[in-house]
Amino acid sequence: MVDIDNGIWQGEEVRVEIVAIGNEVLAGFTINSNGAFIAQEVEKIGFYVIQQTVLPDEPEALAKGFVSAMERADVVIATGGLGPTFDDDTRRITAELFGKDFYYDEDIAEDIRRRFGNDQLSIRDQATIPCDVTVLKNSVGTAPGLVFTRDDKRLILLPGVPIEMQAMLIEEAIPYLQREFAISEIMYRRSINLCLIPEIKVDPFLRHLQEEYPKVAFGIYPSHGTLIIRCTSKDPLDSVVGAIVDRFKENVFPAESGKIEDAVHDLFIEKKLKLSLAESCTGGAIAACLTQRSGASEYFLGSIVSYSNDVKNGVLGVDNSILEEYGAVSKEVVQMMAAGALKLTGSDHAIAVSGIAGPDGGTEDKPVGTVWACIKGKNNFESEWVFHAKGNRQAVIKTTINNVLSHLWKIVSD
Amino acid sequence: MVDIDNGIWQGEEVRVEIVAIGNEVLAGFTINSNGAFIAQEVEKIGFYVIQQTVLPDEPEALAKGFVSAMERADVVIATGGLGPTFDDDTRRITAELFGKDFYYDEDIAEDIRRRFGNDQLSIRDQATIPCDVTVLKNSVGTAPGLVFTRDDKRLILLPGVPIEMQAMLIEEAIPYLQREFAISEIMYRRSINLCLIPEIKVDPFLRHLQEEYPKVAFGIYPSHGTLIIRCTSKDPLDSVVGAIVDRFKENVFPAESGKIEDAVHDLFIEKKLKLSLAESCTGGAIAACLTQRSGASEYFLGSIVSYSNDVKNGVLGVDNSILEEYGAVSKEVVQMMAAGALKLTGSDHAIAVSGIAGPDGGTEDKPVGTVWACIKGKNNFESEWVFHAKGNRQAVIKTTINNVLSHLWKIVSD
Repeated sequence: MVDIDNGIWQGEEVRVEIVAIGNEVLAGFTINSNGAFIAQEVEKIGFYVIQQTVLPDEPEALAKGFVSAMERADVVIATGGLGPTFDDDTRRITAELFGKDFYYDEDIAEDIRRRFGNDQLSIRDQATIPCDVTVLKNSVGTAPGLVFTRDDKRLILLPGVPIEMQAMLIEEAIPYLQREFAISEIMYRRSINLCLIPEIKVDPFLRHLQEEYPKVAFGIYPSHGTLIIRCTSKDPLDSVVGAIVDRFKENVFPAESGKIEDAVHDLFIEKKLKLSLAESCTGGAIAACLTQRSGASEYFLGSIVSYSNDVKNGVLGVDNSILEEYGAVSKEVVQMMAAGALKLTGSDHAIAVSGIAGPDGGTEDKPVGTVWACIKGKNNFESEWVFHAKGNRQAVIKTTINNVLSHLWKIVSD
Repeated sequence: MVDIDNGIWQGEEVRVEIVAIGNEVLAGFTINSNGAFIAQEVEKIGFYVIQQTVLPDEPEALAKGFVSAMERADVVIATGGLGPTFDDDTRRITAELFGKDFYYDEDIAEDIRRRFGNDQLSIRDQATIPCDVTVLKNSVGTAPGLVFTRDDKRLILLPGVPIEMQAMLIEEAIPYLQREFAISEIMYRRSINLCLIPEIKVDPFLRHLQEEYPKVAFGIYPSHGTLIIRCTSKDPLDSVVGAIVDRFKENVFPAESGKIEDAVHDLFIEKKLKLSLAESCTGGAIAACLTQRSGASEYFLGSIVSYSNDVKNGVLGVDNSILEEYGAVSKEVVQMMAAGALKLTGSDHAIAVSGIAGPDGGTEDKPVGTVWACIKGKNNFESEWVFHAKGNRQAVIKTTINNVLSHLWKIVSD
């Protein structure tokens, strides 16, 4: 049971501001996931994110926003507004801001033609770029990325479509930044993941550690039943991480991502075990969570999402008399659901859950958030428990996923 | 097949900036979903979001960030840093900024004790608030919200935990803002949702409409195979919306959210039909998507997530000879999967999907993103098709969900 080292990165004060451009993000129709992705990648190479900003598709506000971002930061990375559609005009505004004319770049046009064919309406638009910029290749879509330079500062424009942005950031922008910015000082960063323990039981210990290690920056990031403690310092962190792991050794789990599903993924593959599920209140969300990661087929056989009682009975073999006597949210039903999944799939372990995700369906005995869970093993292992998840429907589902996967990880890793 | 009217809201230039506070958001460990939620709610009452900003847990940067946000906006809504843990100090910084002392509010303490019991360590912290502020009740957690006033401007502090923030925003902050800001001018906003048509086929028509209706602001928001067109104007939008619906009538679907799963949800409940699924490459994600919404049990019976071929054969009854001859990603296999789901669950319709989500597993014949899908109806209806989704694993899964639900909606609504 070892702490998780996210690695030691070199860093110095290269200050980064991340800007997302677009009314759809500003008005909340699209969640700004680009910002989080870029932040993680630039922090990995030792740069600091000092601010994230979302600006409208509106020339004046955009120009003002760029100017103040360039005042605050050494590197501004902006996404969006590079596409061929008519509401995209980031390129024009930045070129004006830097006093650059446009030219038609035949190499870019040729590259787009080669990859997407000649009938792309937007080739001429996409290949017309400002003079004196560094071009970043787009290996996924058509719009190239652009880097403007002023003194020691950089403004980097990336596409807004996540898969295009991600590829361009990793393949082009990050290597460019590493070449352009010399890096000296070492920064240490470590994370410890905990499961099956609430924030309120972790916080006092960290307050106490803060006194002992005043130069270490601590953070607690809870997420529906699991949490991550992060420590950052200019000095090595072995002793402080050791103290945390020692204090919470029953709760530490290994996963670079901090996600319990990744710990389960790695553990099942390592132990060559197979897993199946019988899901009611989570409606397939445990299976979807596990199969988000490539390679899940090495251990995950499948899930019987038995949303209706007919499927619980007809497919999983839960007795109708048991359903009637105890109700679908009961120890007896999750036991039979897990047994059914084990038998149908031949897996080594099966998890079954049945609960009330809400907002409707709660009773006095079983309020919204009540969830029964069972883990059964081929080797006659069996464990059932009930818990009460807080929050809205999405929170109950997410808490249920983390709770059952935490129990599974504990049981199988012990 | 009617256009979707998100409603007509009253509005005037009340300019809102949304600020998220926290190193975990800034550094990308947490995606800023609070910003999107708040933006949607304040735009619904006719306010304008002019910027979103993410600031660090760092007193100086936070103070500077608040000052410039208050310069740009009439209302600043900030989330995070109100909790009882040691890295939360938004309250202290804002009180300094507004020159306010603190006092211990016995009413707040009493309310926390009543709801959470006497053993909360943080009651004294949470109930100690700045003088001369408006307090917003927290119906979910402990930390109250705070409103600071300077001239006609407001700084509103909300908790960072989404479920607490959401409840406080809807129950307290929005009604407060509606009381405090007089509203006069009418703004019209309309949305049209399209499925099974790419952005590139929609864009030229909107460019043409833009010339005809220069005062209307248009936006296209594509999302993995479906897209939303939004129009905003100070004049009524009936004729422009009519023109769009007329041009794309084969592709328009009704859903206030713009999500095809909501159109399917409403349609199946309205028609009293039942749905089941047999999922391979989506790994439970279609089921999880449909059951995110409360009331899904009225039409959704369940999903057989047959990630392994053994489950395809053993549970869904797909012949092993067919699996061997055609491969798991084939017309023949999805036909048998759909037949199996229909038979096992007794639903009216069943969807089956099998594909290569990637990044591994692609071949020359069946590259990553190749997905076979089948819809079968009790009434002997049957339709199969293949498509090629672009992007990474998550994009392939999301595109598959939208693609099959779009087809299902078209088939059942026709």
